[in-house]
Amino acid sequence: MHARAHDARAQTPSGLVMQRKLSNSAAIQTFNFHRSLLEDSARTNAYRAAIEDVVREGDVVADIGCGTGILAMFACRAGARRVYAIEEEAVIEIARELAHANGFDDRITFIAGSSLNAALPERVDVVVTETMGNNGLDEQIAGTIAHARDAFLKEGGTIIPRALEMIAAPVERSSFHERWPSSYGLDFSPVREHVVNLFHPLAIARSELLATPATMARVDAPAARGSAAWTITRDAMLSGIAVWFRAELTPSIAIANEPESELRCWKQSFFPIAAPRAVRAGEVVRAELQTFDGIEWVWRVDEETRTTLKGWPISV
Amino acid sequence: MHARAHDARAQTPSGLVMQRKLSNSAAIQTFNFHRSLLEDSARTNAYRAAIEDVVREGDVVADIGCGTGILAMFACRAGARRVYAIEEEAVIEIARELAHANGFDDRITFIAGSSLNAALPERVDVVVTETMGNNGLDEQIAGTIAHARDAFLKEGGTIIPRALEMIAAPVERSSFHERWPSSYGLDFSPVREHVVNLFHPLAIARSELLATPATMARVDAPAARGSAAWTITRDAMLSGIAVWFRAELTPSIAIANEPESELRCWKQSFFPIAAPRAVRAGEVVRAELQTFDGIEWVWRVDEETRTTLKGWPISV
Repeated sequence: MHARAHDARAQTPSGLVMQRKLSNSAAIQTFNFHRSLLEDSARTNAYRAAIEDVVREGDVVADIGCGTGILAMFACRAGARRVYAIEEEAVIEIARELAHANGFDDRITFIAGSSLNAALPERVDVVVTETMGNNGLDEQIAGTIAHARDAFLKEGGTIIPRALEMIAAPVERSSFHERWPSSYGLDFSPVREHVVNLFHPLAIARSELLATPATMARVDAPAARGSAAWTITRDAMLSGIAVWFRAELTPSIAIANEPESELRCWKQSFFPIAAPRAVRAGEVVRAELQTFDGIEWVWRVDEETRTTLKGWPISV
Repeated sequence: MHARAHDARAQTPSGLVMQRKLSNSAAIQTFNFHRSLLEDSARTNAYRAAIEDVVREGDVVADIGCGTGILAMFACRAGARRVYAIEEEAVIEIARELAHANGFDDRITFIAGSSLNAALPERVDVVVTETMGNNGLDEQIAGTIAHARDAFLKEGGTIIPRALEMIAAPVERSSFHERWPSSYGLDFSPVREHVVNLFHPLAIARSELLATPATMARVDAPAARGSAAWTITRDAMLSGIAVWFRAELTPSIAIANEPESELRCWKQSFFPIAAPRAVRAGEVVRAELQTFDGIEWVWRVDEETRTTLKGWPISV
């Protein structure tokens, strides 16, 4: 019954109209996330400045994870002859409409899907991608860039961002471990055990940091492994570590989503330990963080190791 | 390569362990939403009281869209002999663990999937479901209940909620239509056109209401059609109408997510008109709202008709 209705619909003009409207609607869902990126003017203007610095008249550009296509349109305005705009979510339909409305659709070629599967008809002068997650790597940007360098970029071409660092600090967030208590007289402890094995996007306050932030890793490949040691600055309960990124877009333009940064579209990534423990001012805390692919993460704070096998962070 | 790796993994014990961890992790993602439901004590305690009112020692209960299984566990505590807990999202794995931890797994039978495809081995005394969206119907509760009444419920059995009303009022929300402006010197108007054809979950303030709320429809089937007329109470710009629900759980227990309600896990549904227009105190505004399935919605405010063909609301 369903299959027949679907077949009939696909063969009628009005069916086509309905399919078109439905998929627009899916694009609008994802647009909502992208609107928060657009509204972060610190983020968007930094990328605009980087594109204006780097893109020359006649350049060919690849924009990976183009979203609404705003960076692709910036590249056109900076003089790009051709932009390959690659996006795997439905928001690419919005990007097509915006490119058309702004008169760039003859210069932007949209490619729906993952850049890892994309084939471009020519090599590009510039690869630009804004696919940093809250800790930098959790949208798999490092693998995306490594692949794009091999598959898309000319010798001597430029990548935006040109470098990425992971920065971290120990954190006291006393409410975190209290959020899965016994509820309504029922035992919810099984959930708590799972939740402390994932990382979480949290807006961390500077006052929650227990030491001066330190660079854990400078990332240049899909795999990242880093460690840091901090001297705790006050007696507190240690809840885990916060991790964020610093991205060098060009030699003169960088952005970093540290706690209370002016960048509004990113929080920080919180990597909890199993149970809070007391730390004293002057005590040294060490942590290691490792991922092979941006998806599976292992972290260790002093002796205790936590692992998450799926990198989609959850919000709390 | 991928397929082979997958096959190998499926045949090894360690592969099974990894699959288990991965799917737990997916369950944790959806748990985050369900935690917001649990933390809404007004919502959860109203359902608990309704279940305690209705469920008798030895009853058989179906909990549709059981989430973390908390209502199923309440039913067990109220004396249910057997609860069929049906859930189509991965959070059902969390529900299984919680049922086990709380000693109810011998009385709760979990069924993964949509209730529309479920077959129960016996008829039930009570159907309970908390699948109201922000306007009541947008999680398709009306169709769910109509089906459950036919397929699962004994003659003379009880459904929680026993009735559902949609309530609405005209709204001034001046910022709504200004949220898709020209950005960074680019034209974003194509997006605006799409966005005003969807409804949106918004937290509406009482001060934004332009008239006394009125019941638009009392819902008793998957289809709902209703209308209301309001006398505007002050000169304002009309942006659209807000719609919420009142659910009668039992004859003595009701919940309603009106603006500034104590129910924290629901907002209101905002149905925008294409462009705000001036209204005067004393003017009468009429609106109609129609859905056949909770997915496709048509609304008309005075002469102007808007349609959304996919009911997943977006947040702004």
